[in-house]
Amino acid sequence: MLTTAPRRLQSYLEGAWRAGEGEGRTLLHAATGAPVARIGAEGLDLASALDWGRRTGGPALRRLTVHQRALMLKEIGLRLMEMKEEFYLENYLTGATRKDGWIDIDGGIGTLLTFASRARREFPNARVIPEGPVEPLSKDATFSAQHVLVPRRGVAVHVNAFNFPVWGMLEKIAPALIAGMPCLVKPASQTAYLTERVARRILEMGILPEGALQILCGPAGDLLDHVTEQDVVTFTGSAATGRALRTHPAIVERSVPFTMEADSLNAAILGPDAGPGTPEFDLFVREAVREMTVKAGQKCTAIRRLIVPGAHADAAADAIGAALAAVSVGLPDDADVRMGALVSRADRDGVRARIAELAAEAEIVAGDPDDVRLVSGDPEAGAFLNPVLLRCARPHDAQAVHAVEAFGPVATLIAYGAPEEAAALAALGRGSLCASLFTDDPAVAAEVVTELAPYHGRVLIGSRASAQSSTGHGAPLAPLVHGGPGRAGGGEEMGGMRGVRHFMMRTAVQGAPRLLSAVTGQWSEGGAVRDDVHPFRRPLSELRLGDQVVTAAREVTQADVEHFADFTGDTFYAHMDGAAAKANPFFEDRVAHGYLVASFAAGLFVSPEPGPVLANYGVDNLRFLTPVYFGDSLQVRLTCKEINPREGAGHGEVRWDARVTNQTGAVVAQYDVLTMVAKDWPAPA
Amino acid sequence: MLTTAPRRLQSYLEGAWRAGEGEGRTLLHAATGAPVARIGAEGLDLASALDWGRRTGGPALRRLTVHQRALMLKEIGLRLMEMKEEFYLENYLTGATRKDGWIDIDGGIGTLLTFASRARREFPNARVIPEGPVEPLSKDATFSAQHVLVPRRGVAVHVNAFNFPVWGMLEKIAPALIAGMPCLVKPASQTAYLTERVARRILEMGILPEGALQILCGPAGDLLDHVTEQDVVTFTGSAATGRALRTHPAIVERSVPFTMEADSLNAAILGPDAGPGTPEFDLFVREAVREMTVKAGQKCTAIRRLIVPGAHADAAADAIGAALAAVSVGLPDDADVRMGALVSRADRDGVRARIAELAAEAEIVAGDPDDVRLVSGDPEAGAFLNPVLLRCARPHDAQAVHAVEAFGPVATLIAYGAPEEAAALAALGRGSLCASLFTDDPAVAAEVVTELAPYHGRVLIGSRASAQSSTGHGAPLAPLVHGGPGRAGGGEEMGGMRGVRHFMMRTAVQGAPRLLSAVTGQWSEGGAVRDDVHPFRRPLSELRLGDQVVTAAREVTQADVEHFADFTGDTFYAHMDGAAAKANPFFEDRVAHGYLVASFAAGLFVSPEPGPVLANYGVDNLRFLTPVYFGDSLQVRLTCKEINPREGAGHGEVRWDARVTNQTGAVVAQYDVLTMVAKDWPAPA
Repeated sequence: MLTTAPRRLQSYLEGAWRAGEGEGRTLLHAATGAPVARIGAEGLDLASALDWGRRTGGPALRRLTVHQRALMLKEIGLRLMEMKEEFYLENYLTGATRKDGWIDIDGGIGTLLTFASRARREFPNARVIPEGPVEPLSKDATFSAQHVLVPRRGVAVHVNAFNFPVWGMLEKIAPALIAGMPCLVKPASQTAYLTERVARRILEMGILPEGALQILCGPAGDLLDHVTEQDVVTFTGSAATGRALRTHPAIVERSVPFTMEADSLNAAILGPDAGPGTPEFDLFVREAVREMTVKAGQKCTAIRRLIVPGAHADAAADAIGAALAAVSVGLPDDADVRMGALVSRADRDGVRARIAELAAEAEIVAGDPDDVRLVSGDPEAGAFLNPVLLRCARPHDAQAVHAVEAFGPVATLIAYGAPEEAAALAALGRGSLCASLFTDDPAVAAEVVTELAPYHGRVLIGSRASAQSSTGHGAPLAPLVHGGPGRAGGGEEMGGMRGVRHFMMRTAVQGAPRLLSAVTGQWSEGGAVRDDVHPFRRPLSELRLGDQVVTAAREVTQADVEHFADFTGDTFYAHMDGAAAKANPFFEDRVAHGYLVASFAAGLFVSPEPGPVLANYGVDNLRFLTPVYFGDSLQVRLTCKEINPREGAGHGEVRWDARVTNQTGAVVAQYDVLTMVAKDWPAPA
Repeated sequence: MLTTAPRRLQSYLEGAWRAGEGEGRTLLHAATGAPVARIGAEGLDLASALDWGRRTGGPALRRLTVHQRALMLKEIGLRLMEMKEEFYLENYLTGATRKDGWIDIDGGIGTLLTFASRARREFPNARVIPEGPVEPLSKDATFSAQHVLVPRRGVAVHVNAFNFPVWGMLEKIAPALIAGMPCLVKPASQTAYLTERVARRILEMGILPEGALQILCGPAGDLLDHVTEQDVVTFTGSAATGRALRTHPAIVERSVPFTMEADSLNAAILGPDAGPGTPEFDLFVREAVREMTVKAGQKCTAIRRLIVPGAHADAAADAIGAALAAVSVGLPDDADVRMGALVSRADRDGVRARIAELAAEAEIVAGDPDDVRLVSGDPEAGAFLNPVLLRCARPHDAQAVHAVEAFGPVATLIAYGAPEEAAALAALGRGSLCASLFTDDPAVAAEVVTELAPYHGRVLIGSRASAQSSTGHGAPLAPLVHGGPGRAGGGEEMGGMRGVRHFMMRTAVQGAPRLLSAVTGQWSEGGAVRDDVHPFRRPLSELRLGDQVVTAAREVTQADVEHFADFTGDTFYAHMDGAAAKANPFFEDRVAHGYLVASFAAGLFVSPEPGPVLANYGVDNLRFLTPVYFGDSLQVRLTCKEINPREGAGHGEVRWDARVTNQTGAVVAQYDVLTMVAKDWPAPA
């Protein structure tokens, strides 16, 4: 068992590590009760810390592009991964096993890396991020609009929970830093030593600009008094604390964006098709036991209610009870231990009190909250508790079963009759983070998931097909939204780049395209153009939005269409058969192939000699708007629409607006051509 | 002047028009002071009304698809447009001129129609709306996720402001009804007669299902005590009321989504380039006067602060003052009148009080709040006020100028020095709905708009190029977000389909693709397939997700590439010149054209005989993933991915997943093929 002398935690504020005044509060090892750290923030100037973040970290981050910020996070993530064993040692102090720590430590670093990678894939390498298409607001293309995202000008204040000291920090600073907002992290005191250690390592790397990351170890004090309308506050923790923060006068008065992720009574439902003997029944039992015991059930997403068909309730209770009885509880660094300790003895008292509340409405059918049985450790010194399964016979009359989150290794089994009753029982939780449904029947999935969705931020379908690959009921994933309505706090975080947007302001910008383009970094119809040189002759460094070529015209003949059909094998009737084409509601006669139009267009706009354009890697939003009949004449206008240099590479992506018109000026086809273009040409030696 | 006997307004709740108990409060004509209506909601059961909406309107709306809901709104909008003269008559009672009414009445109906049309264009014709791409969560395609949007299961409660009695209702019920949420509208009492009349006409049409629309005329009473986590509350009005609603115990306790749109100190900035004599200077002056006088300045978006270069401050003050002096004030239905009355004499008292606050920091340079000069009407009977322009010499020291919204025909002129100071002054408003910048210089636009964006929901650039087509500083538009941070309430509404999403729950659904697809209505990799018949032979009514064809293979030869180059004219060096291709960082040798690959693929997958497939109208997300070299062999797998029947038409859109592989199984190209497919085949006679 690792022990350490209790160290005084420090806060990193205004560019320096600072201990608060006084001795601070002593934090105890969850499993041994030994003192491990002291924490306090008395006398620290939090108004000044927020201001420091706004004045230094904010401007420094905003000077970088999104890709540059993401690359900093990638570097931080890779270096944290190398030093993670240090964090795993301290993870044991929280009562968590190594497997539990994997979710927190590897999971947290992985989340950081996922954000770093997706931001570079999904956002342009820019400071102002256009969102959605240009909205034409006039017929003559003299007035248009586009939404843009810019970093909010304040500090992202993250008030985090005790149960994921690493992941909790990283999953929130990743989207905020990518957005361009400096962060002030306030971990829950009980496990702040681990958060402090990771933050210390990040700051030591010297990768982040000064002011981009601050951490407050100790009570929040008057922190929220000083938030303003440009700050963002996120909170993960109990509903009671969340409500207090949400109604804080500064947050209300200044409309500070506030995201809350709180307790919820997550349900797992066994489908009517998933009786004993099916793979889904076994998956359900395994997931129930896993969710109850991982992190000793101290997970916001853990299953609290097991909703099973009445006919299978006994079998489910027996199977889960038997599996729980086999779960070894003890010291978290003991290799024979499957479940460690709760985070503190006070928390154990709380879990026991809540089990008593549940037991007023449900019967304990497995485990005994007062009889701690361990394979190692001292049952009184450590915050140990064996798993407890309850069973509620009258769930529609129950209150506590749907409202009291034990936040320990505790769940209640409930039986349902008709399939629609299962989702209705889950909804009695009045909003949860996630639910799971175990079924192999698509009709059951369609019906039950649609009913579950309004009450849950995430729904997992468990089945034999995904038995090996499923990430499990309780795992929030960086690409998926995490949060839930009602009791779960009404918040939403992560969800890929959705999570980044919470830290940005969305603004609709309107104006003449030439001026709009200067703000958004995208050319649009009506914008300024330059056509002195074929734009394929310009390297990225010389290319500008609006660089354009207008081609010569080319006639499309019947012979062309027939030749193309013969060559490609595409003899679709609309190209080949006049009568059939005329019978078609969209055509007056035989038409040219869309692919022929696009191919001829490329032949018209391409500049064939070797040059900075390296490849056409794709086409977006191609629409054939007017049929091309024999004898029509095509002309192309190709305009540089977006220039996206790639960090650390010799090239970048260029998006071109391609517009093909016929001899009447009607637009025949419109699309984006995607190319790779060298930054310099001729290429540097 | 139209007058009416004061009618007792009714509320439509639980399927019937109901007057509250007692006499109610009398509402007066804004411009004549004559009684026009009585209003009260004493004794109405609002808990029961909410429950009625949840039990009847919600399920009825959810049985419809998004397109069906949108078509109802289209029909309502078209019929309202036919009967609008009735609304214009009553519009005068609010003190508004016909032009003012145009924003409210035509603007409101137009917003409804825009939502109805865009929803059908941008959302599939379904009940569950997939959002964003499928997220593969395993390498073997056995576990994936997709976000879906479903209607929230409660009632959308809209607490609206007095100044746009028609638009205020319609712009909020449109997105809510399209989302599938029933609405309960609570108009501000002062102008509720007009809202009640429009709601009455809508309900008389019998187009909406029972329970989809309720209206409460009178005080909100205990309404909010009864909202739950599935309801949504929106509020437009004063910041003080908004704060009270936001902290209402039921809203806080149940995390009820709450959107607020409140007072703000919107700014218009004259660019440093836009001195007297430029078109932008004239546009600025015209817009300032228009924004101050339309609706007598009672618009949330109206310009309150005019921020001009110091060198042009005198000229701007003179020009605006002169134009304001020429504004005729009087009875709103008088054709010679440009500006009508404020909504009530009490409101006029309020505006005068706030002018007094402003006058402590700024000098009145045009107009006199105590000297009412009219072309018609009685200055004491009606709530008249002439426009007032103030000028603040020390804006950095001012408080009221940046914080007190007069909400009348009042604005304050402020001078700035360096360009960056202009945006900083605007930001002193601590969050506004919108700002405008008058410039013809792209560099000024880029710099100032980027600085304005974090503090504003919308920024308009005014310039000569958009002089004729600009919709103006103060006009919220259905496709653009409306709302602002901080003082403006921190809310966001409209913004096209973004506005609809506020009334839907976003849920991440995870599972095996076969089960996921049953929920989302989209096939994805790993999903079930059916390949007994070429899917182009099946009409829409028989087509299913996963219907698939896997084609024969076809070799691509050097002759093919050279022939295609010759035929299309696309002789890009990477296809033609071995040395140049090898020098390219992406290719090892000469490669086939991407368009050749797509053309051959079509030749492989097409089923050429006449059939239900009517047209290929586009291609989405085409990516060339692996180069195709001479001798490579291509094979296509085409799978039905999304089926979108069109309401009231004989066909629908079908999206196909096209995957082209080479002889090693590597994916050469992946894209969506978009087709129109007849619902029945052979076509019905």
